[in-house]
Amino acid sequence: MSYAAPIKDMLFVLEELADMATIANLPGFEDAGIDTAQAVLEESARFCGEVLAPLNVEGDRNPSTWKDGAVTASPGFAQAFRQFVEGGWQGVQHPTEYEGQGLPKLIATPCIEMLNASNLSFALCPLLTDGAIEALLTAGSETQKQLYVPKLISGEWTGTMNLTEPQAGSDLALVRTRAEPQGDGTYRLFGTKIFITWGEHDMAGNIVHLVLARTPNAPEGVKGISLFIVPKFLVNEDGTLGERNDVHCVSIEHKLGIKASPTAVLQFGDHGGATGYLIGEENHGLEYMFIMMNAARFAVGLQGVAVADRAYQKAVAYAKERVQSRPVDGSAKQAVAIIHHPDVRRMLARMRALTEGARALAYVAAAHSDIAHHSADERARAEHQAIYEYLVPIVKGWSTEMSLEVTSLGVQVHGGMGFIEETGAAQYYRDARILPIYEGTTAIQANDLVGRKTLRDGGAVAQGLLREIDATLAALKAHDDATFRAIATHLEAGRQALAGVVDFVVKQAKVNPNAVFAGSVPYLELAGLVLSGWQMARAALVAHAKRDEDRAFYGAKIATAQFYAVHLLPHAVALQTSIVSGASAEGAINLDAEQF
Amino acid sequence: MSYAAPIKDMLFVLEELADMATIANLPGFEDAGIDTAQAVLEESARFCGEVLAPLNVEGDRNPSTWKDGAVTASPGFAQAFRQFVEGGWQGVQHPTEYEGQGLPKLIATPCIEMLNASNLSFALCPLLTDGAIEALLTAGSETQKQLYVPKLISGEWTGTMNLTEPQAGSDLALVRTRAEPQGDGTYRLFGTKIFITWGEHDMAGNIVHLVLARTPNAPEGVKGISLFIVPKFLVNEDGTLGERNDVHCVSIEHKLGIKASPTAVLQFGDHGGATGYLIGEENHGLEYMFIMMNAARFAVGLQGVAVADRAYQKAVAYAKERVQSRPVDGSAKQAVAIIHHPDVRRMLARMRALTEGARALAYVAAAHSDIAHHSADERARAEHQAIYEYLVPIVKGWSTEMSLEVTSLGVQVHGGMGFIEETGAAQYYRDARILPIYEGTTAIQANDLVGRKTLRDGGAVAQGLLREIDATLAALKAHDDATFRAIATHLEAGRQALAGVVDFVVKQAKVNPNAVFAGSVPYLELAGLVLSGWQMARAALVAHAKRDEDRAFYGAKIATAQFYAVHLLPHAVALQTSIVSGASAEGAINLDAEQF
Repeated sequence: MSYAAPIKDMLFVLEELADMATIANLPGFEDAGIDTAQAVLEESARFCGEVLAPLNVEGDRNPSTWKDGAVTASPGFAQAFRQFVEGGWQGVQHPTEYEGQGLPKLIATPCIEMLNASNLSFALCPLLTDGAIEALLTAGSETQKQLYVPKLISGEWTGTMNLTEPQAGSDLALVRTRAEPQGDGTYRLFGTKIFITWGEHDMAGNIVHLVLARTPNAPEGVKGISLFIVPKFLVNEDGTLGERNDVHCVSIEHKLGIKASPTAVLQFGDHGGATGYLIGEENHGLEYMFIMMNAARFAVGLQGVAVADRAYQKAVAYAKERVQSRPVDGSAKQAVAIIHHPDVRRMLARMRALTEGARALAYVAAAHSDIAHHSADERARAEHQAIYEYLVPIVKGWSTEMSLEVTSLGVQVHGGMGFIEETGAAQYYRDARILPIYEGTTAIQANDLVGRKTLRDGGAVAQGLLREIDATLAALKAHDDATFRAIATHLEAGRQALAGVVDFVVKQAKVNPNAVFAGSVPYLELAGLVLSGWQMARAALVAHAKRDEDRAFYGAKIATAQFYAVHLLPHAVALQTSIVSGASAEGAINLDAEQF
Repeated sequence: MSYAAPIKDMLFVLEELADMATIANLPGFEDAGIDTAQAVLEESARFCGEVLAPLNVEGDRNPSTWKDGAVTASPGFAQAFRQFVEGGWQGVQHPTEYEGQGLPKLIATPCIEMLNASNLSFALCPLLTDGAIEALLTAGSETQKQLYVPKLISGEWTGTMNLTEPQAGSDLALVRTRAEPQGDGTYRLFGTKIFITWGEHDMAGNIVHLVLARTPNAPEGVKGISLFIVPKFLVNEDGTLGERNDVHCVSIEHKLGIKASPTAVLQFGDHGGATGYLIGEENHGLEYMFIMMNAARFAVGLQGVAVADRAYQKAVAYAKERVQSRPVDGSAKQAVAIIHHPDVRRMLARMRALTEGARALAYVAAAHSDIAHHSADERARAEHQAIYEYLVPIVKGWSTEMSLEVTSLGVQVHGGMGFIEETGAAQYYRDARILPIYEGTTAIQANDLVGRKTLRDGGAVAQGLLREIDATLAALKAHDDATFRAIATHLEAGRQALAGVVDFVVKQAKVNPNAVFAGSVPYLELAGLVLSGWQMARAALVAHAKRDEDRAFYGAKIATAQFYAVHLLPHAVALQTSIVSGASAEGAINLDAEQF
């Protein structure tokens, strides 16, 4: 099997780090304990490993194709999508009242990781449908919910996000697509949207486009953007399909990776106007789109974890099989499998530590989201929502940036074979490269982290997390053991660095915005590095307590946490130095535009 | 123009950092001063920019093709190669007695950078020919030199390196290709070689393969390997071409990048044996091949600098043109070119600092090579040869690894457009990925750095370099200026980190080989980071002295050195921490093969 979901690792994170037991105690999740999680994960692993993973290479070699406005998915994809729909996989985390399974996000999260690890291109289609469902559930009218959501949850229809235009990428203030009211409550849309993932395809009966556009006389900038439902086929009141809407795919892109996933240019209104239905109120579109974007950003973070894990699995398999050179310590006279060479071990340990750390942080974030949505206690809901929102840009930015390094190391472990496309390691390297770009580049995530997530509350949520790290540090220091002392030392240094930077951001943002924003991506990187390292330390504490139950498994947890602490965390201090000095003349980037 | 060679920057490095004046004083280089350098660089820049750069995309879209054993180069390549030959570009650094131009390596080096920046795939063909020339000049008989070298220098023929076999990659001890003596002084070769760059093509009249093989009863391992000349067409005594030799290209690879460069599988002796001529003595093949490899390794390091610079140029052009979002400091009411946004500036500054630092280190290494080969003083020759040899694995490993980051940032600066192949940024990301793999992976370079270059002399050469850094530090500290204080502080911390690691390597290699070799790539990274940072600091000192002559140019040199010091050098301490702690239980990688 080309992908075996790491179920045991995932369940460890669910149970020991993300506190599955608390989630299962929330109202509505009474049946969602660790046994349910295990059953769901095993079934998901089987489907992803057997059905989707083998199609991954196929889709890379035979990208989706465009002809006369129609897009045909890669061979096997439509059939696999039918199996996905039949399995009810789209509905895992969505409410039962709209025919979803109503499971916690914490259980859906490993399923989504598996989906993406097995086939990033395929998984993008449900990923965007999830976003559309969340946006409709939050901002749609009751009629809109009844008409669209059950069909999206079943997988009969799929959803898309239409934001980007040629002149409006990161800057949505520049959106120009027009929406003209028709007097009957509907609108007609005119414009061009680009980079629309799964914007056209033949895997589902309808495509529900959620589209940002401007109504006549709307204010300039982001405060004049509204959100519309523009279905590919109009939907009759009884839910049956009506006529073809005036939205057409005029081309798809030729991309570096995720080639099976069609990236569409959509033309709205070339034949009289695309019929659109306003979601919520006019001029509040961006607000609603942010619901969808936050869901999608978290999921893209999982894509980073997923492709990193797949690359890791492949590299380990190769390293165990490829025989080359004698050991440097003279322990064998013959060439050995390269997994015994120190630098290969270093690369694999690095891949593993980065992947496990990012996974743990993402799953913990999912648990905060569950509490935020389901706790009976209003204050707890608000607190956990704030933590979740702080973590989303970090999960997105950190997990995707680290996936670039991990997939690159995956190629390196394969040596010359890694550069040959047939080997397959290169596909992960190509596929991963979009992750720090779409759904908001890392810089956009970092702006969000600085602006909405740190400055707005004066660093309160960040300081709350730092206090939690202190509790972990106290537990680490209770161990009289060199390994735990090393973990504590480096985690503490990382914690201090993060604290220093949060303080810097809060104090300097107004006086010195250019310095703070030049340090925003390094701040995000620092936060990802330290918060993931914290999760690894927590894992080590649990593993130590349980070590006699399964020495190989828990021993590996401790060793990976230790590697993370000693080999990755020391860079936290360097990041702090570089960020904080940005506010001084000698730390600033003293190059004019013309000097570049 | 898609590539404009940075002539002014290159001349700055030649003159101010690599001490062109000293090189021009060496016997035989009397005409090779800065004026000659400038004239050669300008002519090279014209040829590379006008002829080779436009073919780069063309070669990516239309890779070289194989049919019935024949390989056709990408469209336009054969004609461009004729122009390359007519321009005498193959001969720049080779001796006049074999019809080369006899210029210093220091002048050839920027020319080779330009060649690679304009077209990495194309440049690989001359790169390997250079290696074949060096090997023949050092180890070939006078007859062999007369027969092959002038035709290789003119570019009439090209050269290849045949090392790798399916079971023998990094581990050449496993080479199996057989060479059977025929009694007439010739041999017949039988075997399969893979990953042979430009191993077959239609751009030149003959291809001179240098091939590693075993003679009957040769000792096992690397001490039983001999080196042979196996020309594609046998060569008559008068230099005319004879019959086709029994070496055939059975396929070429489908690769992630450098697609125009054919990577051949060569079959030797399927039709009775490929005629080969022994170079030097039997069983000394690896020694001779190392001559070729060292030349090629240095040149691959330049490839890293080259592709990084090309990616930087493209990213800067896009950032100046793409308008998106208002400035964070409120300095404009409208969206501005993205080069004005702090994070874009950070990415571009990082790309620039990494590229300039690696370039300076490589050029300085080239100057050491010139002194090593041309000084009248035997002791100077030996000293500079030792420094050059210490620097080669660093130039190779560091420049190529940093090119991965720089080309990745190049994609990121382009946002979504970076992921679309037509944009062109993705090609550099794909092309660069081979650089840390071929001609010895980064781990192989790091083993060389630890074993032959640090342990063998007890760290003496490294300590000599550290003393030179001290001299630079003294000069920096003479400036009463915050910028220079910052550069001094971070360079000094980096210098201490490097000193600590050299000491660690020397003391621990015997007692704790696994720890030292697990830290070997980080040691190489640390050496590259600090030694390049040292060159940047030297550049800042010169720029400060000359600042009134050209404020924009010298100001940018100081700003780039400062960025390097504040944003890159602080990671030196983290690398030291991780390397040095590897020797303790809590720093080791405590995972068994089965635990990965």
